[in-house]
Amino acid sequence: MLRVTVWHEHRHEKINRTVQEIYPDGMHAEMKSAIEEHLGDQVEVTTALLDQDGEHGLGNGVLENTDVLTWWGHGAHDDVRDEIAQRVAQRVREGMGFVPLHSAHYAKPFKLLLGTNNHLRWREAGERERLWVVDPGHPVTAGLDGPADEKGPGGRAEFFELPETEMYGEPFDVPTPDELVFVSWFAGGEVFRSGCGWKRGAGKIFYLRPGHETFPIYKDKNIRRVLANAVKHVAPVAGTTAYRHRSPKIEPALEKLDTGHVVDAALHEH
Amino acid sequence: MLRVTVWHEHRHEKINRTVQEIYPDGMHAEMKSAIEEHLGDQVEVTTALLDQDGEHGLGNGVLENTDVLTWWGHGAHDDVRDEIAQRVAQRVREGMGFVPLHSAHYAKPFKLLLGTNNHLRWREAGERERLWVVDPGHPVTAGLDGPADEKGPGGRAEFFELPETEMYGEPFDVPTPDELVFVSWFAGGEVFRSGCGWKRGAGKIFYLRPGHETFPIYKDKNIRRVLANAVKHVAPVAGTTAYRHRSPKIEPALEKLDTGHVVDAALHEH
Amino acid sequence: MLRVTVWHEHRHEKINRTVQEIYPDGMHAEMKSAIEEHLGDQVEVTTALLDQDGEHGLGNGVLENTDVLTWWGHGAHDDVRDEIAQRVAQRVREGMGFVPLHSAHYAKPFKLLLGTNNHLRWREAGERERLWVVDPGHPVTAGLDGPADEKGPGGRAEFFELPETEMYGEPFDVPTPDELVFVSWFAGGEVFRSGCGWKRGAGKIFYLRPGHETFPIYKDKNIRRVLANAVKHVAPVAGTTAYRHRSPKIEPALEKLDTGHVVDAALHEH
Amino acid sequence: MLRVTVWHEHRHEKINRTVQEIYPDGMHAEMKSAIEEHLGDQVEVTTALLDQDGEHGLGNGVLENTDVLTWWGHGAHDDVRDEIAQRVAQRVREGMGFVPLHSAHYAKPFKLLLGTNNHLRWREAGERERLWVVDPGHPVTAGLDGPADEKGPGGRAEFFELPETEMYGEPFDVPTPDELVFVSWFAGGEVFRSGCGWKRGAGKIFYLRPGHETFPIYKDKNIRRVLANAVKHVAPVAGTTAYRHRSPKIEPALEKLDTGHVVDAALHEH
Repeated sequence: MLRVTVWHEHRHEKINRTVQEIYPDGMHAEMKSAIEEHLGDQVEVTTALLDQDGEHGLGNGVLENTDVLTWWGHGAHDDVRDEIAQRVAQRVREGMGFVPLHSAHYAKPFKLLLGTNNHLRWREAGERERLWVVDPGHPVTAGLDGPADEKGPGGRAEFFELPETEMYGEPFDVPTPDELVFVSWFAGGEVFRSGCGWKRGAGKIFYLRPGHETFPIYKDKNIRRVLANAVKHVAPVAGTTAYRHRSPKIEPALEKLDTGHVVDAALHEH
Repeated sequence: MLRVTVWHEHRHEKINRTVQEIYPDGMHAEMKSAIEEHLGDQVEVTTALLDQDGEHGLGNGVLENTDVLTWWGHGAHDDVRDEIAQRVAQRVREGMGFVPLHSAHYAKPFKLLLGTNNHLRWREAGERERLWVVDPGHPVTAGLDGPADEKGPGGRAEFFELPETEMYGEPFDVPTPDELVFVSWFAGGEVFRSGCGWKRGAGKIFYLRPGHETFPIYKDKNIRRVLANAVKHVAPVAGTTAYRHRSPKIEPALEKLDTGHVVDAALHEH
Repeated sequence: MLRVTVWHEHRHEKINRTVQEIYPDGMHAEMKSAIEEHLGDQVEVTTALLDQDGEHGLGNGVLENTDVLTWWGHGAHDDVRDEIAQRVAQRVREGMGFVPLHSAHYAKPFKLLLGTNNHLRWREAGERERLWVVDPGHPVTAGLDGPADEKGPGGRAEFFELPETEMYGEPFDVPTPDELVFVSWFAGGEVFRSGCGWKRGAGKIFYLRPGHETFPIYKDKNIRRVLANAVKHVAPVAGTTAYRHRSPKIEPALEKLDTGHVVDAALHEH
Repeated sequence: MLRVTVWHEHRHEKINRTVQEIYPDGMHAEMKSAIEEHLGDQVEVTTALLDQDGEHGLGNGVLENTDVLTWWGHGAHDDVRDEIAQRVAQRVREGMGFVPLHSAHYAKPFKLLLGTNNHLRWREAGERERLWVVDPGHPVTAGLDGPADEKGPGGRAEFFELPETEMYGEPFDVPTPDELVFVSWFAGGEVFRSGCGWKRGAGKIFYLRPGHETFPIYKDKNIRRVLANAVKHVAPVAGTTAYRHRSPKIEPALEKLDTGHVVDAALHEH
């Protein structure tokens, strides 16, 4: 059973009528339902919100009991406490999967994990986006449904479209992805690396670009499938190890050494 | 059900008493049993041998009905017909998983897929090899069992050892791997990238170094587990597409174009 | 002094009036002049043509005396002799830089080096292409000149445009590039990884997409600069080594080994 | 003229007699001399020390006027002010080259840039290290001098040795390097990725492992050469751009859009 926590900023629903109308129960409810729709009995999905308790819903062992964390934030990144952001980043390094969504390119834990500024170009004009699959065979692309006359081998989509989106454009200031799965075309003239994977420590990260709050992105059948696929893709693998939490202990040699070297431990610090 | 074909050169068993004694039923039988031991009901494993029929056991639709092909060859790479090697490489590009083992670094289909010469240093001296996990969390490392006092978080191994092996050393003339999972230490002074992953087309490749015929490598519990893990790791993902077999057809535009450009099709060739 | 050979198919100039008018001295002359314009005293550029002598202009030690080879071919890939294609690929592995251009995605040596089919979508409609820089700071992007009001830090371009091009679209069936520098947007709705780098052996490869013969691509100031930059980028580095041409010699141990292992050399083959 | 700043912790020289004897003028003087020995007229090298002024020698425009920063620290990482560490990391993202050395795997700016914990195994036993070149042709390996009977093509080294070193062992908790150049073998049984490159923003990073203070590492001819090579390798390229410092400005469309979408700017925040 994969334990998934859907984290959501949940502020736009309170101030923007369009968002309220699209997502009457909040965007988190829609994301939760998308993951459950496709992963069914394989997952147990809970939600956590920015303004919940004093720890953004991520205290009391929530992170320790989360296998995959999805993260949607757009306007209130600064309201996330540094201490919690650090805690999330550290859990990823220890093996928790992480799926930052849309404007979470600026989310504190994502920036801490990538080490970059994550800047990009943007425009909210409701334009068309076409997401091209540049890595056929990748598990995040499973089950995509594109135009009937544009299918590749196996009857699957080489691209899918979103009729109205916010635009994000290159240059996208992130480290070279370990995996590049989607590249977007925008009607206004830009391109974007819209589906990217990285590893940090023993944890896997998958960033998925679409998700603007004033368009019904999480009701789109393909986005729902990709979101569920991404959750499954970054899940930790049973029976693997993580990186060690190092103590300042000196490792004994695994082979016989006869160097006669004496360490002045009093002076040594690591 | 994952359909696995274990391909084996099967020549050393006929001329070398040591190999006969270690693998009385052939090395392919041992590899098959290792995969079945760990993947059980998930797989259907068959074997194919170099000297079988006129197509190395890979004719009659065998490749079309194989999801993952493992490949062991050492002394008779040149006896593999070019046409069959090309056929194997093409099936990988179309999505079949491929696990070249040990001296299959020189196997024709592997060289065709990588585009390099795959040279390396080597020595057969029965020395100790220690395989270090450099990518904790990677599925190929699941379930490894190392020395009791050397376990990382989760109780899993940071390395495992083989008491007697043939040495392969860097520089290993292959493209930069998409994934590097194991790096070996050898008692004689060399290192080697012993577990490497690449993608070619929609197919995944995982090269696993150990496997010399005069040592009981495929009886080692960790190698058996890694072999099964690798098979599972490179398996194609249901519901994904592959790259298209292009015809020389011109793609119609997906957006309205009004360039007025006229193509002289008679002169055009692609 | 960098020794550059500009290889050209040189067939379209003989049959297509448009190509003749754009490139009265042949496309190779234009490419040569672009490289000389920007690298001046650093280079010595010669040309080689498909129909030259019996070896496509690449016999008589030409390859051995070439540091960087650029390659333009479109309609006659099959007329390149396999033996010569293999020779080119092997020289790249030994350290020669290689710059396949445009339709050379299907060139024999490039396919041999990548190990993939290199399929893509295409359309010749004279549409606009906008090449986005996704790797600012990369040497291949030095000196680009884009629209005045769209410059990034340092006053340099974040993209540049070609008013009329042939379209190439994803999925582009190549291995994950070691470096991705340009991603193209096309007016007709596609995207493409238009500037990609790989290493093979000790040699560097940079593929540059634009270059259709019926548009004056090699007269464009940005393309001229990028072509010269790419040549410089893939040039071999003095004082480095290459991968060894292995003989079947056993390497002596670098450390003292006392395994007592005896190899039956008569049975051993590598 | 490449402006290089050699940053040094400079604490061990004050408390450890061995270090004083090896480096009577401080380790920074030796590093400076190594860079000048090999890059001569191409560089202008200055030094900066942890206990200098209140900004570790990195205030007053020093960073703004530095093209490449090398960083050696071992025992006092915590004494580096967070604000200065952030400033260094940001300069790297803007294009400054960065060469963290040895125990600087734990240096604050390096950790900020990688996003990982950078843990590793270690042992100070004065054992032998052999650094294998796994990327022949890479500029950082130019001019290496190894054992006379172990040279590859071109007469250059496939490895070089350090007779006495501190051991660092895998798993090394860093992101997958964009470039892997050296892998070390240690007499005590470990391996390590000792020469690794990453990009962050427009800046290049090269981590070089050896450098323990109680061994004369920076007097070794090969280490001196590699250090100078690394400085040159990460230097910013003239004429390239960097990532933009984004303002919250909406980008105008580059193509004509007619979506009729109206943005409620009052509610919009990015």
